[in-house]
Amino acid sequence: MRIVVDAMGADRRPEPDVAGAVLAAREWGDQIVLVGPEDVVKAELARHETAGLSITVVHAPQTIEMHEHTDAVKQKRDASIRVGMRLVRDGQADAFVSAGNTAAVLASALFDLGRLRRGPARVRRPALATIYPVAENPVLLLDNGATADCRVEDLYQFARMGAAYVEKVWGIPNPRVALLSNGEEADKGNMLVRDAFAFLQQSELNFVGNVEPKEVTRGMTDIVLTDGFTGNIMLKTTEATASFLMRHLKRELTAGALNKVALALLVPGLLAMVPGLLLLSPALRRIARRLDYAEYGGALLLGVNGVVIIGHGRSNAKAVKNAVRQARRAVENNVLEVIRSSIVEGSERGEDES
Amino acid sequence: MRIVVDAMGADRRPEPDVAGAVLAAREWGDQIVLVGPEDVVKAELARHETAGLSITVVHAPQTIEMHEHTDAVKQKRDASIRVGMRLVRDGQADAFVSAGNTAAVLASALFDLGRLRRGPARVRRPALATIYPVAENPVLLLDNGATADCRVEDLYQFARMGAAYVEKVWGIPNPRVALLSNGEEADKGNMLVRDAFAFLQQSELNFVGNVEPKEVTRGMTDIVLTDGFTGNIMLKTTEATASFLMRHLKRELTAGALNKVALALLVPGLLAMVPGLLLLSPALRRIARRLDYAEYGGALLLGVNGVVIIGHGRSNAKAVKNAVRQARRAVENNVLEVIRSSIVEGSERGEDES
Repeated sequence: MRIVVDAMGADRRPEPDVAGAVLAAREWGDQIVLVGPEDVVKAELARHETAGLSITVVHAPQTIEMHEHTDAVKQKRDASIRVGMRLVRDGQADAFVSAGNTAAVLASALFDLGRLRRGPARVRRPALATIYPVAENPVLLLDNGATADCRVEDLYQFARMGAAYVEKVWGIPNPRVALLSNGEEADKGNMLVRDAFAFLQQSELNFVGNVEPKEVTRGMTDIVLTDGFTGNIMLKTTEATASFLMRHLKRELTAGALNKVALALLVPGLLAMVPGLLLLSPALRRIARRLDYAEYGGALLLGVNGVVIIGHGRSNAKAVKNAVRQARRAVENNVLEVIRSSIVEGSERGEDES
Repeated sequence: MRIVVDAMGADRRPEPDVAGAVLAAREWGDQIVLVGPEDVVKAELARHETAGLSITVVHAPQTIEMHEHTDAVKQKRDASIRVGMRLVRDGQADAFVSAGNTAAVLASALFDLGRLRRGPARVRRPALATIYPVAENPVLLLDNGATADCRVEDLYQFARMGAAYVEKVWGIPNPRVALLSNGEEADKGNMLVRDAFAFLQQSELNFVGNVEPKEVTRGMTDIVLTDGFTGNIMLKTTEATASFLMRHLKRELTAGALNKVALALLVPGLLAMVPGLLLLSPALRRIARRLDYAEYGGALLLGVNGVVIIGHGRSNAKAVKNAVRQARRAVENNVLEVIRSSIVEGSERGEDES
């Protein structure tokens, strides 16, 4: 398998991007292609032991900054993101991984890969899919940031793509699809949600109605469907709340002599490791891991003509490595064909660009 | 002060509603008016010791069920919610408290109290304001559920109402107003957020730009501005995440003999009280209290011509009592005039109903 990694993606690029690529190459033996300014990437690579690993560098002299917009993506044809996408488009690589500016990766995926087609029909808008981190069962949340303003037909297509993915990749037959809303009743929600509810009820999907966030955490659906703005707020609220609580819990648990004795009993030897203090047991460690974006790596971009994983800007080497793992799993599971199979007549037709 | 409490509001009505009203009457000595079917309310009231308290009952034979809609509110003129609102409208009470169906309370407030006016201008849409529970400083979140679909002018009016409230009631001069978004840059957000950003930047408000949820928890604003759908999802995601983590933390902390010894050291005597297990210290207890809706009581409905507090459907007696506390504080602080002062020309004019 051949996976392209954007060497200039993460906030602290190229350090975590290159280090993560090296870790991935070592762990799975895949061919890794790093894209970025050749001298910068090679200098960074020289800091690692890479003997026996299959890592090559493809020169991409331009870089898209975190604050730059879609226009910059259009103009910078030689940016690392765009060079990486074209390697995928031209069949020279199986997947592309970037921890860069989400909007820029998305724009480049649309320009360079295009939207996924099946016969005359094609996906109208892409969606970012990720596992929602605090739920009793695996839950796929989409869209979490690709399409902020959605129409009903977009949500329907997201649901079909998500259902195909969960059924074929996770092995859950006829997965449950729920709409994120501010109440369970059919008349709850904003205009988009109310219209989508009526539409989904008539559809062939296993639509289980509206869910509030607490039902999501309790595992009452396999797929949570929402527009990219709300999905992103939900995911970031979850991370912010967990981080706030963990921060305060740590502060409290490390204050006071008696607490220190008690904690030494709870986790012998762990007391000195304040950042790991809350990892009191394997199960708690599992919770903390699920909340750690470095563990899940990134989000899968559904609806474009190639496998693209978008990582967190704050990615460290482990997060980049795990984003590569996601990419290789997607390729192994033939995700592109799985998603293509979900496109139906009634999706967008024709050649217009938007 | 005279406060009307809906006896038929909470999911388990009339028990928590009546019990909470009794607690409030005892604590603050206010006149409490309970509205509901007289026989039901009096029977419930008879279960309490009410000697010396000023509690009266006003008969309201109809009840609006949790699943009923705006039409039911229009038709049931003698429902407890509507009778309560009219007592406020007619000057027979200072405030109304209900733990009932939010949509029904809102509809009744609009029918019976009407929207707040200042000269020819009036509020176009109401907003529910509440304190966001996980932030390093007090943060007012609005709208959290009154107006799911907003226009830019609604968000601007919410911001003016919120700023007037925070300045006059919390005593924070020139409070910071931030827009909830999926990124800090001006071009992040959905269409509404992008348009509102441009508008607020030109306004007289102390607009500090977009905030993501993590900036809210870190106290980087005094007011978080959002449409009622997104605000409700944010609040409920916060509650669901905290509840998920607390549940798992409890499960882990009570598993294993060594943990039990350690916990006994941490909180002597508390070990038997599993529900309170995490209240390891006063500060942690403060966090848990902030996350407990029973502590904050309810949300303040801004933009209607009367003081209305809407409590959580799952309210217990303590929550109802604290909702009464919020109502009396709002009356003491003359919130209605504070909010009225925020209405400017450019708000809705004329007599149309919507």
